[in-house]
Amino acid sequence: MNLAAEIALAHRLADAARAEILPLFRTPVSSEAKEDATPVTLADRNAEEAMRRILKAEVPQDGVFGEEFGEEKGRSGRQWVLDPIDGTTAFLAGRATFGTLIALLVDGFPVLGLIDQPVLKERWLGVAGQGTTLNGQPVSARACRDLSRATIATTGPHYFSQQEGEVFMALAAKTDHKRMVMGGDCYNYACLASGHIDIVCEAGLKLHDYAALVPVVEGAGGMMCDWNGEPLHDASEGHVLALGDPARLEDVLAAMSGKDAHDDHAH
Amino acid sequence: MNLAAEIALAHRLADAARAEILPLFRTPVSSEAKEDATPVTLADRNAEEAMRRILKAEVPQDGVFGEEFGEEKGRSGRQWVLDPIDGTTAFLAGRATFGTLIALLVDGFPVLGLIDQPVLKERWLGVAGQGTTLNGQPVSARACRDLSRATIATTGPHYFSQQEGEVFMALAAKTDHKRMVMGGDCYNYACLASGHIDIVCEAGLKLHDYAALVPVVEGAGGMMCDWNGEPLHDASEGHVLALGDPARLEDVLAAMSGKDAHDDHAH
Repeated sequence: MNLAAEIALAHRLADAARAEILPLFRTPVSSEAKEDATPVTLADRNAEEAMRRILKAEVPQDGVFGEEFGEEKGRSGRQWVLDPIDGTTAFLAGRATFGTLIALLVDGFPVLGLIDQPVLKERWLGVAGQGTTLNGQPVSARACRDLSRATIATTGPHYFSQQEGEVFMALAAKTDHKRMVMGGDCYNYACLASGHIDIVCEAGLKLHDYAALVPVVEGAGGMMCDWNGEPLHDASEGHVLALGDPARLEDVLAAMSGKDAHDDHAH
Repeated sequence: MNLAAEIALAHRLADAARAEILPLFRTPVSSEAKEDATPVTLADRNAEEAMRRILKAEVPQDGVFGEEFGEEKGRSGRQWVLDPIDGTTAFLAGRATFGTLIALLVDGFPVLGLIDQPVLKERWLGVAGQGTTLNGQPVSARACRDLSRATIATTGPHYFSQQEGEVFMALAAKTDHKRMVMGGDCYNYACLASGHIDIVCEAGLKLHDYAALVPVVEGAGGMMCDWNGEPLHDASEGHVLALGDPARLEDVLAAMSGKDAHDDHAH
């Protein structure tokens, strides 16, 4: 697949979302505001509507699945998956770590993923077979020879159940604990693709949260899978794992199951 | 105090720190790099040295206390407190939420505080009696009429001891849990001063971590204190609390002690 037309379209979608989102970032919000009238809700809806208008006009045969307005079936085997603002709490807290997520699935497989940070004007684009770029410049995930030197990130422990939190902590304990970062949402996966973070481990992610991340991370040489190391088709419980260095998968899964990969080797 | 000269000097210090920090942000770092050779360590040292050179040339009579190079006593009753990069893990993770902190203490009391985010080119400046500005525009913390609608932020639960974590969770449970944000370091206090966050609660902060935050938060109408509601002189265990709305102090302290402020009123 060449995908040149789809890439150009994805950029136009992200441009349209940016134009809706930026004017609402850091607009005043009373802490008493109702859920459905916050600036982030308006930005979410306006941005998804703007993207849907473009898709309807340009590729009416394609399906659309958006976080805000649900699914519209297509008849082309192609589906655009949209999350206008991933990281709504970060957006509301005034922090430029939220992002617009756009994915193109062909026969259910994500072949194009885009993470756009409107405030910083940073756009990561991953395309199957073509690598990942940040604002047009190729990026790559970094090597990580030893789990104990890995930087791990997650958006927050409050998104884990108690059991999930224990699994995360078992993994975090084997990494470089001093460098662990919290918060970040989709921006953690973008920074992993650029070689600044080694592992992201999260739970509760839905298709619109992770579809765009897969081509970005994998195009940069990293890997994404569920907590069992399986591909992310219908990730169970939204258990998502991103590794900058796929060679660490065995170590990571062993740490999460409370085992030590090197011990296993010895037996 | 007029402080016009000190304000101009603080801007020159922040400009000099930015010039040292920006070229090192997101430069490649192997996950195996030794602590003392990471880009953030170089940026930290270079930025503090640049600021100390300016202070030595312009106000040799003032004391300096910096995170990297310790204390140099002065003879003017004035001390500049410098933290070239607050949020070193965020810096290493590629996230534009770290900041340069500059405070001026007169007889031990912070009269000027500056939080600079080099990547976003955002600079919050708080001056006693003159309010707080972001890039020259006045900002203010927001009202919060009910703790249950408050957005709370902390850099990460891994910075708490188990007991501190329990106190934090007792407070967080009374706030709007869905909007809690993790990560952020000094940037949380800046966003509180701009009216996007209601409460920041942290432990283990040192003078160079919090001195600059006090004029920024208080100039915006917020308040800073320790976990007992006392002023931040030698904050015990570095227990720091920032409130956008000082009227919520009683509720916050009651929640942290496991009591309910309104129950107390009834008796």
